[in-house]
Amino acid sequence: MAFSMVASHSRGKSAADKIFGASAAANAAKAKFGKAAVTDATIGAILDDNEALVCLPTVEKVFRSLPMPDIIAYAPIAGLPGYLETVIEAAFLNNKPEAYMKAVATSGGSGAIHHAIWNYSEVGQTILTSDWHWDPYRVLADGLLRKLDTFEYFDDKLQFNVQSLEKKVGELLARQDSLLLIINTPAHNPVGYSLSDGDWDAVLDVLKKAAKNDKKITLFVDVAYLDYSGEKNACRAFMKKFGNLPSNILVIVGYSMSKGFTVYGMRTGAMIGLSSDQAIAEEFQNINQYTSRATWSNINRGAMTVLTTIYKDKELLTQLEGERDHYYKKIKERADIFAAEAKAVNLTTLPYIAGFFLSIASGNPEAVCTKLHDDNIFAVPLAKGVRVALCAIPAAKVKGMAGKIANALAAVEK
Amino acid sequence: MAFSMVASHSRGKSAADKIFGASAAANAAKAKFGKAAVTDATIGAILDDNEALVCLPTVEKVFRSLPMPDIIAYAPIAGLPGYLETVIEAAFLNNKPEAYMKAVATSGGSGAIHHAIWNYSEVGQTILTSDWHWDPYRVLADGLLRKLDTFEYFDDKLQFNVQSLEKKVGELLARQDSLLLIINTPAHNPVGYSLSDGDWDAVLDVLKKAAKNDKKITLFVDVAYLDYSGEKNACRAFMKKFGNLPSNILVIVGYSMSKGFTVYGMRTGAMIGLSSDQAIAEEFQNINQYTSRATWSNINRGAMTVLTTIYKDKELLTQLEGERDHYYKKIKERADIFAAEAKAVNLTTLPYIAGFFLSIASGNPEAVCTKLHDDNIFAVPLAKGVRVALCAIPAAKVKGMAGKIANALAAVEK
Repeated sequence: MAFSMVASHSRGKSAADKIFGASAAANAAKAKFGKAAVTDATIGAILDDNEALVCLPTVEKVFRSLPMPDIIAYAPIAGLPGYLETVIEAAFLNNKPEAYMKAVATSGGSGAIHHAIWNYSEVGQTILTSDWHWDPYRVLADGLLRKLDTFEYFDDKLQFNVQSLEKKVGELLARQDSLLLIINTPAHNPVGYSLSDGDWDAVLDVLKKAAKNDKKITLFVDVAYLDYSGEKNACRAFMKKFGNLPSNILVIVGYSMSKGFTVYGMRTGAMIGLSSDQAIAEEFQNINQYTSRATWSNINRGAMTVLTTIYKDKELLTQLEGERDHYYKKIKERADIFAAEAKAVNLTTLPYIAGFFLSIASGNPEAVCTKLHDDNIFAVPLAKGVRVALCAIPAAKVKGMAGKIANALAAVEK
Repeated sequence: MAFSMVASHSRGKSAADKIFGASAAANAAKAKFGKAAVTDATIGAILDDNEALVCLPTVEKVFRSLPMPDIIAYAPIAGLPGYLETVIEAAFLNNKPEAYMKAVATSGGSGAIHHAIWNYSEVGQTILTSDWHWDPYRVLADGLLRKLDTFEYFDDKLQFNVQSLEKKVGELLARQDSLLLIINTPAHNPVGYSLSDGDWDAVLDVLKKAAKNDKKITLFVDVAYLDYSGEKNACRAFMKKFGNLPSNILVIVGYSMSKGFTVYGMRTGAMIGLSSDQAIAEEFQNINQYTSRATWSNINRGAMTVLTTIYKDKELLTQLEGERDHYYKKIKERADIFAAEAKAVNLTTLPYIAGFFLSIASGNPEAVCTKLHDDNIFAVPLAKGVRVALCAIPAAKVKGMAGKIANALAAVEK
């Protein structure tokens, strides 16, 4: 083995990020053929009809008006107190469950997952998520010396597969005393599915049953796309179900400002812990604050202040919600075009409800994506299929995509 | 033991931060007695003569002029390429050693330390730093399941204690195959000492000797206060010594924008790896980029762009350097007043050369700080003494402090 300076657990690790890789290929094509000729479906951020990155105007206005001390001063390790209070409001709106709740600021949604894995699973343990999942979950688990296992997100009829979840939860809890389960909903990345009320009841039944044998279960709900998931309270209604759970089931809501405020590069989010046991909620805040001190120290003060300022001001909030709704509808328009064309060419997508992405299953996603390069279409190859970023493609470029993807699939699979 | 949901390694951990605690006491006094009556020597940021938080004007100007996409877009995981190139220039100026160098963006200096500990020490190993050190080093080590040991920073004559360093390095390498050593210089927090040329030669001799038995040594140099340490190239001259070291000695320079750009709350810094072996420098970039993906994903894009914009523009850089120099001199003026008065009342401080803080040794720092509350003076109690933040106290309030500290010491120790 080559000479190395790193610790044994860090040997040979490196992240060849598929998303950034696909994005680089798209950029090369734009340089060669011009932007107009290229459909770049790799970008996980909202672009407008001219393919310019969108900043919600209210966010820009509030951010630009902050005095410098609100941007440059250190924030407390756990986050600004006003932010910690307001971010709970922003996450739940009218759907606060009966539970003790505590929040800690994090470096976006990723930072919340980092802390959850570090503090709510043992080194060497296996974490569970769905087979269709945001790729970095695996790097987060592996980087923190955990394993990642998956249940099947959908059954043969493309229904949420609660049987597969139950089976995997049972298998894992047969060999470990605690389990961290990550569910990304509503508007799942990369599929666009949102768990229904019935799905949620089934999930919580599985967890309550599994928790009966003194097992400890942490349910991490990644709501990164919450603010583009439909009517604001309807798409949050499931959160009420997190009330009055047994004390050995902790729910963590992973909240990100990245998409809801279009401030991806400002790296701000929060983790909100919910428990029927006050001491467990306090333990949550203590340990995650501790881990923040031992990881990144504190979080972007200006971004936190933007959230607090807007949510404390009804007029600003109404404006922001209107802006979000505008882009929610724009993405829906793109999705509807894709869906209609997909139907016409008999292309099946995974069940899309809302969100930045849709996905198409394939046994050979790399080859499909490479084939699509012939049409100057760039998408992200995942383990089980191809991800298309509706958030980034103007309607005019969505037109014709479904047919080209169907052709690429056929070419690869013949 | 009380019911707990966290992983076994996280049980019972919480961070009662001494700095934030002392700061809260100061704020309570300000609310009660008025700001003018209180000397708040707890704050680790530059305040002007009116005790207002300073933002260097060039930083504000450049930051305010950034287009929103430069603030809100995701940056690559490792950092913006222009930043990674420019931050090496900013760290070394004319003192680049003969070495392969690679940089990775981090969440301030803390984030650089986090990655260094995680990737360059084994779980359970002991990390070494000086007994006078920035408190959070201990939380960083403990949070990442490492131990922290210390060598004596100064001998009886208040000279840098290389013998103590050598002894500890020998002890630790007798029982572990690798060692991470953290040295905070120039303008050490909390003491204000800067290692001399001779000190550095002695340190590197110790490390080179220790590395001879196939041991792996990582030297982490925390240069958080670099830009207020004296003439810009003179205070960096030691960096040249990091060239042509054996390949089993890796140097990591932990660079922070927090102080040098007065953007504490923007959470941006970098770790720069230096090795005589190109493969080790590449391994450094790969593994730390990987750990970034598994921790915080990416780093504040706007802050990185501020650094790149200023350092690529001679005029802006000259302005910024002038502004830093102004505050360097202001802090020096405060330090000179304190030193003169300390001499007059026979109060010994640890050897201060430059920087935000000075320290006074005490066997009972908590009691000394409490006693100082009688005079409405608020300082931070550390393990071995009391830290005074010169960066935050106007000259008018520095006057008389040394005498009051001498009295408090005498009262506590009598």
